Amino acid sequence: MINQKMKSLGEKRSCIREIFEYGKTRKAEIGAENVFDFSLGNPSVPAPDIVNETLKKLIDNTPAASLHAYTSAQGDFSVRTAIADYMNKTYGDFASADLIYMTCGAAASLTISLTALTDAGDEVVVLTPFFPEYRVFVEKCGANLVEVVLDEEFQIDRKAFENAITNKTSVVIINSPNNPTGTILSEDSVRVISDVLRNKQKEFNKSIYILSDEPYRELSYEKAVPYIPAYYDNTVISYSFSKSLSLPGERIGYILVSSKAVNKTDVYSAVMGAGRALGFVCAPSLLGETADIGVYKENRDILYNALRDYGFEPIRPDGAFYIFMKSPTEYANEFCEKAKEFEILLVPSDDFGCTGYVRISYCVSKDQVINSLPAFKRLADFYKLTER
Amino acid sequence: MINQKMKSLGEKRSCIREIFEYGKTRKAEIGAENVFDFSLGNPSVPAPDIVNETLKKLIDNTPAASLHAYTSAQGDFSVRTAIADYMNKTYGDFASADLIYMTCGAAASLTISLTALTDAGDEVVVLTPFFPEYRVFVEKCGANLVEVVLDEEFQIDRKAFENAITNKTSVVIINSPNNPTGTILSEDSVRVISDVLRNKQKEFNKSIYILSDEPYRELSYEKAVPYIPAYYDNTVISYSFSKSLSLPGERIGYILVSSKAVNKTDVYSAVMGAGRALGFVCAPSLLGETADIGVYKENRDILYNALRDYGFEPIRPDGAFYIFMKSPTEYANEFCEKAKEFEILLVPSDDFGCTGYVRISYCVSKDQVINSLPAFKRLADFYKLTER
Repeated sequence: MINQKMKSLGEKRSCIREIFEYGKTRKAEIGAENVFDFSLGNPSVPAPDIVNETLKKLIDNTPAASLHAYTSAQGDFSVRTAIADYMNKTYGDFASADLIYMTCGAAASLTISLTALTDAGDEVVVLTPFFPEYRVFVEKCGANLVEVVLDEEFQIDRKAFENAITNKTSVVIINSPNNPTGTILSEDSVRVISDVLRNKQKEFNKSIYILSDEPYRELSYEKAVPYIPAYYDNTVISYSFSKSLSLPGERIGYILVSSKAVNKTDVYSAVMGAGRALGFVCAPSLLGETADIGVYKENRDILYNALRDYGFEPIRPDGAFYIFMKSPTEYANEFCEKAKEFEILLVPSDDFGCTGYVRISYCVSKDQVINSLPAFKRLADFYKLTER
Repeated sequence: MINQKMKSLGEKRSCIREIFEYGKTRKAEIGAENVFDFSLGNPSVPAPDIVNETLKKLIDNTPAASLHAYTSAQGDFSVRTAIADYMNKTYGDFASADLIYMTCGAAASLTISLTALTDAGDEVVVLTPFFPEYRVFVEKCGANLVEVVLDEEFQIDRKAFENAITNKTSVVIINSPNNPTGTILSEDSVRVISDVLRNKQKEFNKSIYILSDEPYRELSYEKAVPYIPAYYDNTVISYSFSKSLSLPGERIGYILVSSKAVNKTDVYSAVMGAGRALGFVCAPSLLGETADIGVYKENRDILYNALRDYGFEPIRPDGAFYIFMKSPTEYANEFCEKAKEFEILLVPSDDFGCTGYVRISYCVSKDQVINSLPAFKRLADFYKLTER
């Protein structure tokens, strides 16, 4: 009859979406400008002009019958070549058009990769805190999610990581710059992860893949983001243009199998098979440049400095557009409920696998950030925090 | 390690795509106008002007940050409302915005629906000949595909259908107008199916759903297409704008749970859960009208009449844009290879679950149809067919 797992999954909305829907209702009630909605990772920076200009040119100049036509199952060869060329020029020689598969965005890239790389009963390792939908995607494959808690600075703890890798581990998911913390995995962390996995591959005589989920790759303000294929051969990259091009609604992304991966052709075949079985074919095709991320950096600086000054304990993000902040009360849920009274919408960290934090998504207008400051100040006063 | 099922699925390209790729190569060699490619269901009729006009208006007039923004997980409420209103006005009162889920196109609509409606070990019934990817989608759910062979006129045989329904049947897939035959299931056939399923639901004390795959719904030239929810309550419609709007590359479709379905809310929850688990969220949103199908009708008339006159045995299609034609030799593969020598690309019926036929996809330019006629004539002469 009805698949009960899917039914309960459909009934249980994600916490983030729940808050997003509350925000919509509240804005209708008191006006959008009076609600300080920091709940959803919806880019506020417009897509680069070149995206819309290209779209309009395509509409005007492409033969009518081929404008909206199917692409190849893996995506247009010319698009894949352009991506491979760009990646190789920027990060070194790890990409090939033959090993790139266009998808409908980040979620699709992840579900297809996981379906390709896991069997039922396998273990997939994530680093906590982690994006909550990872659990949904992993469990849909019949695999089990294994958490490795990061240290205080959200870097890897070698011992904890080593202990988590078993002969059932098929995939380790990495997400840097990170949602929800905004931090970047240091080169040291990446070296430790690679080193441990190489040893474990030998020990268990099997391949273990890093699935590098990189929707925020370009959204780093100061630091370089270590490019995983340069450190570890068996890497599969999951990418989406949602965040870098400010095109979340357009659902474009890709999967890139490193050309150094041991069984790269088999992995790519499995990706194609999974894409086919899950019903993702012929992803829309468009390639541009990066939206102006200076706006996010500015928001980070204003908000991070203010929150710290008010007495909160925010973690300074390196990239993406999230501030992870300690809750002044034990239960982050309680703190989020209180913040609502000041019309501030935040996401508690519990869904990301750790307690006692909130995620503040600052991919919003600079105006919202500035206008929200008095509300944050009053919230700090309510908790009697000491101004610095 | 690598999922072997997915790997072999990725290595085994669909027969249709194989021919499509051969056609691309051959066209590069001898010029596109010299290859009569009838292999792929890629609409030749341009999308209605209103689609491109609307796109351009959206690009110019939508606030930059919301133009490419996320929609709700189920799709914009306003879009779903517009679809429900249109469906209710056109087909009677079976649609509700609350029971519509926007998807990335036909394949996505099918995989999500099947994931929602089946458990591992269930049986999914298809009517042969059928679209070959049904098997891939069904088996990905861990369910088993059960074929019911249609009669000579591609209508239902009550006895055969009755025998196929067991206490493991959870879904029956219907596809009318049909790919590959172009025929429409008659009202009689639909009544028989509904009647048998109602009895079997009682007998087995469980729900059995019709999954009505309707990408060609509007592509009927003369006959009315029976609207399944009017005959059977437990119906889920899978729709795509690919064919009706000539927008295959844009990947927009929806799932509609009939408002008469017994457990409609549970079914819809399962659809939402499956969409989430498979990684389909926030489908692109756009709604328009139907592309001009007069072109297809004209192609059908020219091609069908000519083929019959030359001595072939084509089946006259009611809709969609496929002619199903008996192979003059026992093995359709052999016939397709021979046709290639005349630069005609056809798809053998074997992948659709029956032997001895070819599919001719005439969603091509009228020029191609007319220019291909001498080649078809020479092909008929090769087989010494008798002209009528």
